[in-house]
Amino acid sequence: MRIVLPKGSLERATLELFEAADLPVVRSSGVDYRATIDDPRVAEVRILRPQEIPVYVAEGLFDVGITGRDWIEETSSEVVSLGELRYSKATSNPIRMVVAVAGDSEITSASELPDGVRVSSEYPELTRRYFEKLGIRADVRLSYGASEAKVPDIADCVVEITETGRALRAAGLSIIDTVLVSYTEVIANPESYQDETKRHAMGQLMTLLDGTLEARDKVLLKLNVAAEQFDAVIGVLPSAKSPTVSQLAGGGFAVESVVEKRTINLVIPALKDAGATDLLEVPIAKIVH
Amino acid sequence: MRIVLPKGSLERATLELFEAADLPVVRSSGVDYRATIDDPRVAEVRILRPQEIPVYVAEGLFDVGITGRDWIEETSSEVVSLGELRYSKATSNPIRMVVAVAGDSEITSASELPDGVRVSSEYPELTRRYFEKLGIRADVRLSYGASEAKVPDIADCVVEITETGRALRAAGLSIIDTVLVSYTEVIANPESYQDETKRHAMGQLMTLLDGTLEARDKVLLKLNVAAEQFDAVIGVLPSAKSPTVSQLAGGGFAVESVVEKRTINLVIPALKDAGATDLLEVPIAKIVH
Amino acid sequence: MRIVLPKGSLERATLELFEAADLPVVRSSGVDYRATIDDPRVAEVRILRPQEIPVYVAEGLFDVGITGRDWIEETSSEVVSLGELRYSKATSNPIRMVVAVAGDSEITSASELPDGVRVSSEYPELTRRYFEKLGIRADVRLSYGASEAKVPDIADCVVEITETGRALRAAGLSIIDTVLVSYTEVIANPESYQDETKRHAMGQLMTLLDGTLEARDKVLLKLNVAAEQFDAVIGVLPSAKSPTVSQLAGGGFAVESVVEKRTINLVIPALKDAGATDLLEVPIAKIVH
Amino acid sequence: MRIVLPKGSLERATLELFEAADLPVVRSSGVDYRATIDDPRVAEVRILRPQEIPVYVAEGLFDVGITGRDWIEETSSEVVSLGELRYSKATSNPIRMVVAVAGDSEITSASELPDGVRVSSEYPELTRRYFEKLGIRADVRLSYGASEAKVPDIADCVVEITETGRALRAAGLSIIDTVLVSYTEVIANPESYQDETKRHAMGQLMTLLDGTLEARDKVLLKLNVAAEQFDAVIGVLPSAKSPTVSQLAGGGFAVESVVEKRTINLVIPALKDAGATDLLEVPIAKIVH
Amino acid sequence: MRIVLPKGSLERATLELFEAADLPVVRSSGVDYRATIDDPRVAEVRILRPQEIPVYVAEGLFDVGITGRDWIEETSSEVVSLGELRYSKATSNPIRMVVAVAGDSEITSASELPDGVRVSSEYPELTRRYFEKLGIRADVRLSYGASEAKVPDIADCVVEITETGRALRAAGLSIIDTVLVSYTEVIANPESYQDETKRHAMGQLMTLLDGTLEARDKVLLKLNVAAEQFDAVIGVLPSAKSPTVSQLAGGGFAVESVVEKRTINLVIPALKDAGATDLLEVPIAKIVH
Amino acid sequence: MRIVLPKGSLERATLELFEAADLPVVRSSGVDYRATIDDPRVAEVRILRPQEIPVYVAEGLFDVGITGRDWIEETSSEVVSLGELRYSKATSNPIRMVVAVAGDSEITSASELPDGVRVSSEYPELTRRYFEKLGIRADVRLSYGASEAKVPDIADCVVEITETGRALRAAGLSIIDTVLVSYTEVIANPESYQDETKRHAMGQLMTLLDGTLEARDKVLLKLNVAAEQFDAVIGVLPSAKSPTVSQLAGGGFAVESVVEKRTINLVIPALKDAGATDLLEVPIAKIVH
Repeated sequence: MRIVLPKGSLERATLELFEAADLPVVRSSGVDYRATIDDPRVAEVRILRPQEIPVYVAEGLFDVGITGRDWIEETSSEVVSLGELRYSKATSNPIRMVVAVAGDSEITSASELPDGVRVSSEYPELTRRYFEKLGIRADVRLSYGASEAKVPDIADCVVEITETGRALRAAGLSIIDTVLVSYTEVIANPESYQDETKRHAMGQLMTLLDGTLEARDKVLLKLNVAAEQFDAVIGVLPSAKSPTVSQLAGGGFAVESVVEKRTINLVIPALKDAGATDLLEVPIAKIVH
Repeated sequence: MRIVLPKGSLERATLELFEAADLPVVRSSGVDYRATIDDPRVAEVRILRPQEIPVYVAEGLFDVGITGRDWIEETSSEVVSLGELRYSKATSNPIRMVVAVAGDSEITSASELPDGVRVSSEYPELTRRYFEKLGIRADVRLSYGASEAKVPDIADCVVEITETGRALRAAGLSIIDTVLVSYTEVIANPESYQDETKRHAMGQLMTLLDGTLEARDKVLLKLNVAAEQFDAVIGVLPSAKSPTVSQLAGGGFAVESVVEKRTINLVIPALKDAGATDLLEVPIAKIVH
Repeated sequence: MRIVLPKGSLERATLELFEAADLPVVRSSGVDYRATIDDPRVAEVRILRPQEIPVYVAEGLFDVGITGRDWIEETSSEVVSLGELRYSKATSNPIRMVVAVAGDSEITSASELPDGVRVSSEYPELTRRYFEKLGIRADVRLSYGASEAKVPDIADCVVEITETGRALRAAGLSIIDTVLVSYTEVIANPESYQDETKRHAMGQLMTLLDGTLEARDKVLLKLNVAAEQFDAVIGVLPSAKSPTVSQLAGGGFAVESVVEKRTINLVIPALKDAGATDLLEVPIAKIVH
Repeated sequence: MRIVLPKGSLERATLELFEAADLPVVRSSGVDYRATIDDPRVAEVRILRPQEIPVYVAEGLFDVGITGRDWIEETSSEVVSLGELRYSKATSNPIRMVVAVAGDSEITSASELPDGVRVSSEYPELTRRYFEKLGIRADVRLSYGASEAKVPDIADCVVEITETGRALRAAGLSIIDTVLVSYTEVIANPESYQDETKRHAMGQLMTLLDGTLEARDKVLLKLNVAAEQFDAVIGVLPSAKSPTVSQLAGGGFAVESVVEKRTINLVIPALKDAGATDLLEVPIAKIVH
Repeated sequence: MRIVLPKGSLERATLELFEAADLPVVRSSGVDYRATIDDPRVAEVRILRPQEIPVYVAEGLFDVGITGRDWIEETSSEVVSLGELRYSKATSNPIRMVVAVAGDSEITSASELPDGVRVSSEYPELTRRYFEKLGIRADVRLSYGASEAKVPDIADCVVEITETGRALRAAGLSIIDTVLVSYTEVIANPESYQDETKRHAMGQLMTLLDGTLEARDKVLLKLNVAAEQFDAVIGVLPSAKSPTVSQLAGGGFAVESVVEKRTINLVIPALKDAGATDLLEVPIAKIVH
Repeated sequence: MRIVLPKGSLERATLELFEAADLPVVRSSGVDYRATIDDPRVAEVRILRPQEIPVYVAEGLFDVGITGRDWIEETSSEVVSLGELRYSKATSNPIRMVVAVAGDSEITSASELPDGVRVSSEYPELTRRYFEKLGIRADVRLSYGASEAKVPDIADCVVEITETGRALRAAGLSIIDTVLVSYTEVIANPESYQDETKRHAMGQLMTLLDGTLEARDKVLLKLNVAAEQFDAVIGVLPSAKSPTVSQLAGGGFAVESVVEKRTINLVIPALKDAGATDLLEVPIAKIVH
């Protein structure tokens, strides 16, 4: 597989994920856009702008790439999506692409925007298609950043991405529509995806990446329990997956179970109340079902 | 429960402890003294100066607070102590509040201080009570920091907190008495503590915090041992807690035990000498007995 | 044991290793070259320049020291090597000491260098012995750094250490010989090594250090497997060490095995293909066979 | 003169001012609250908390001190004010001490506050006197910072200092009165001020400090002008101070004048229009009239 | 005048220039793309991407803007150039926009590039016009950065800007043509430029900016000289501008002259040899002829 | 002239001095030990370790070098000293090379040291000559730094450089003799110094460097004075150099004089008292008598 990874804001999180997935990306000395992964399934690694990645994957210059849904749509690229990557609970908010106008505008929905409306956007193609679908003739201009600064004197509205809406609000804009919800995705070239060997390799890659991401939100809980309290304790354990139970040499059982971090604050006290002893929380680095 | 956490020097360690205890404190965007914990037992979180926390908890503005024993005493607040928090071996030194005079002074005990002695302290109330008990009329002045800089020309002695005594020594002062030994404590409003539901919730909170702190100084040791060496190996394991023993499919036993980090340097070589094989040290994130 | 650790470029990695080995080095307050380790086997710790360590260990001022092979050779010190320390895969490249000349020189092997050749080196003794052995009369000068900057106008060749050769290439030099390959080593005073108690303590020290270093490149893999797939799964596990197998209360087996990180990217997908379920990767802090 | 300078937020600006005034403050090695100024008029320099400085100067422990008007008032200290220090245009905003209530409160003036009002303030004495004058019985509590965080649940109003009001607004509070406007001031002990020698030295100190501060906002403008355009050019020069005019050997005049930086953008083009040539702007370090 | 300044790589140098020109740009609190200059000639200041500035100035949204020649050309904007800004000797290198191919390509001039050549560029319009003029049908693709990384597998050549050519050489590319040489320029809207008041204001703005930039490379030299050596000394002074000479009260002359910094190393020794005494070099902040 | 400048602790101050002297040192791109100065008198610039510079200058590899007196003595190099460089008042303390022993040693003078004394020093040659002169047989060992850490167990005394003696005192050592006082010096090859052209160029170089250093401690004072007060004002001006006096067109005199910064705090108030008006302090960049 030839793989292309995103340079810029997604770069650090992506490289840390591959490192944690035991697929460390080693940059070639001297040039920072070529790299290697020591894995027989990976022939080549490049680190390029996420804006350009969908086209390169669609054209077959690479078999697999990581980029945002926003750029896949902007470039209308024909690629296969292998799945989303939610780097962590803290940063896994999807990015929304929204239409926003001046806060004191009387317009409250995109369809009210008049013909000739001046639109500033870093996504001109997607924006054009959006307004075409609405039947509005828009004067779309390529923005090189900080589009929100242009309303109302330089543009009448913006089509911008936002995570929390804070920057838009701070600039005094109101969101009147959501064009797209965008996650980071792993995409594949359609032809490569038809190749059985490559598709198997892609599946294994996703196993490692997904297993690493899932482990970030979970821990391994170990506990001992006497025979009498066994059922009570098992009853308290979240049921998503059956726990691993082994008999102790001295009687009673050792139980191991993977639990979501965000429920630990309730599960541990409940287990203790139910009779579990010697509870241990052990961090895990990867989990594969 | 409404909880109040300490701003300032204890802030980072406290927030890291709650994060590690799977009770992450999320600050409200925009204001840095309001926060939330995603837990049904926690209704409200505020981050305020430790000096003011004992009064707020005593008055019932909060059910639970974290602050230092020094401020509980300075403010003579009636609160229930749920336990001390020793953030880590490195920083769990208690803080001592001491009386110090000029290094070349002839005074060697607090009782020798004369009436009218000028005392500089950030703890004026506690200092006044201290000297009253000694029967000395002291001229106590509120210090806004660096009290040690004021001896001998601006003050005759100081009542200051110190961890190692280094700052006092560097300023040429001698310690002549210890007024108080102060740890970070979790405190509760007495009335809230009478409420059964709240007291149960407080106990569960302490379970999570204590379990996290205890895990910082311990590790999980895993080892295999043949039947013949079993007793010898078990004999070497520190006896605080009985190890978890399970029989291996291929004969022999798998043993797991939690061991204090600071004894590992002796325990591992001893276990190996006794016949243990395949020793593994696994980090743990929480331990609840 | 009196121990001497290297100040400078190896300092941080060494102190981190001792910390991870549960032998934390606590610096004495005020002076940064004296320290202690809370261990009955360690009487004294000093942190000094690696250049001077071999002599001090050879003379018996210390029982054990950590330094580079290059300085052991430069100082012709008689010490016992207890083993090499490869701090991590990333930084465990050996350092090579090489002979380099101007890139446009016609000389391609050290033996072609003429009598009177001007040699710049931070290792003058080792360099002198090297040229004596070659039968070349060399004008060796002590370099205080950046020797490569001196060719060709200030020196005709350099004897320098290099990890990747990059600095030499950037300065336009060509390597024509390798004098030495140098690792970080733990060395002991020969007499101390004869003392049985001390030799035993040295062995235990190496057990802790080696166990910590080995754990950096490995993880614990836990998985469940039904009886039918057991052989297939075991067959896929790397065979270096037999896995720990215990029977589950509900049927099937729980398998634990230590696996090298750099093979995980292949092993986990293979195990899953063979029928393993509930694979967990758990980080480990120490491994002792 | 014994001088006491403020530690903390004013410290850096004060030390930079003294350095620029050619009165560099040299800290004593090892202790950071003692210093010296190499000047026969200065016997001793201490760096202490601004809160405590008014009292020390009033009591005669120091002849001269630098602190804020707010602390002079809080401590009701009897001192002589030698003048204000406006460190620079950017930071010379006075600090206002204001009364603020919850933004949604119906109270719009301090006199509407009810008896028993809970007031949080870092200036309890000043606050008590303020409410006494208003005839309101207030429950004043010493705040250790972030008072604005306490409204409305912990306090009903705050008496706080603010430069721009931004922090108060961000916390949702409304200012309903201004208690005090506070500048940084140079203060003197009244008795020392009666001493003629000391008063002369204080005057010279103020000459150097004021001359340095004034120079920060001004530049020296040099220009040449022919006899015919002389009157026109002089007419354009700001009239605050008569310019220095000297005749050039080759005819015409050389004119030098000190001009405020913030008018340069208009003065230079106007001077050029009026016939001035060879205009030069030269930075100045001190100006004394 | 409404002014638009460039955000990004030119931002800091531009704001520092305006500050030094006594036209400090004060950002509006909260938003970072609106600002003000306290000057009656300046009605509004915006800070926007240099790519968008030429269009906004051409359309009359702003009277004056600062941007690079490259973006003026890319956008084919009709604007009036008021002059170049060379921020300093160190950074006043013009930026060149060049055509570059793989270093091992046999193509040595742009005209040899074949039809269908894949070109990566951040300047697609300019690139298209360039190839049209050459009569080559080029497949031009918008690059989002690091174009040089795309040759030879993703693109056949790049049209990129470069200061020193180093990044291109490091990527193994060869420059085969220069499309454009680009400086930072002050541009004006053509209609605004016809307005006499505005043109006068623009001229005054350029006087302040140019006067500040010129002063960076010059110093004021002051010296005294006796009558006998006067001619010799004057003869040594660089002749670009006649020096200001005034007679000293005690005989002899005081001479002042502005001299380029880069000639000082020769001029000062020469002046001293010719008989000048009391030479002083004084820094200047602005110079207007 | 070929010039060699010191790498390391003196590097930054040296490069800043050359920059201020209008002799900016431009490093060659890619290599950090080659540089150029755009001056017809300077053919080549190298930046090398100060330890090696005396030898290279003595051997004629360079005409001029900058290094410390300590290394000139250690290497017994025959060079001509062109003068000392005192970079600034703050850092112009000479470095002293001292002999120090354990603080509790009974030895109070170097001559009391016994034969066989173990001496640790970074200056072995100079140390050997020193002890030879004293008639003491010393066991001198090359130290690679932190020599003070070696007393008393590894060495009996050290020969070390020190600026303030603080590090030695902190390590508990007592200074018993001063071997050498060392300044940074400009040195020349004796043969080059005989060459008249080169000696003239060296003199001009020193004029620029000395003129720059002298200007750091001085300022230009400008003032006006009426005829009646003229003598009084002139009488107050420090007499080192006669002031420049010119008659003002409007009567009275304009006086300019260079004054030492460290006397300004006394001179300005005195001048004002004597009747001077419109005092201005102007920074200067260079002064040549």
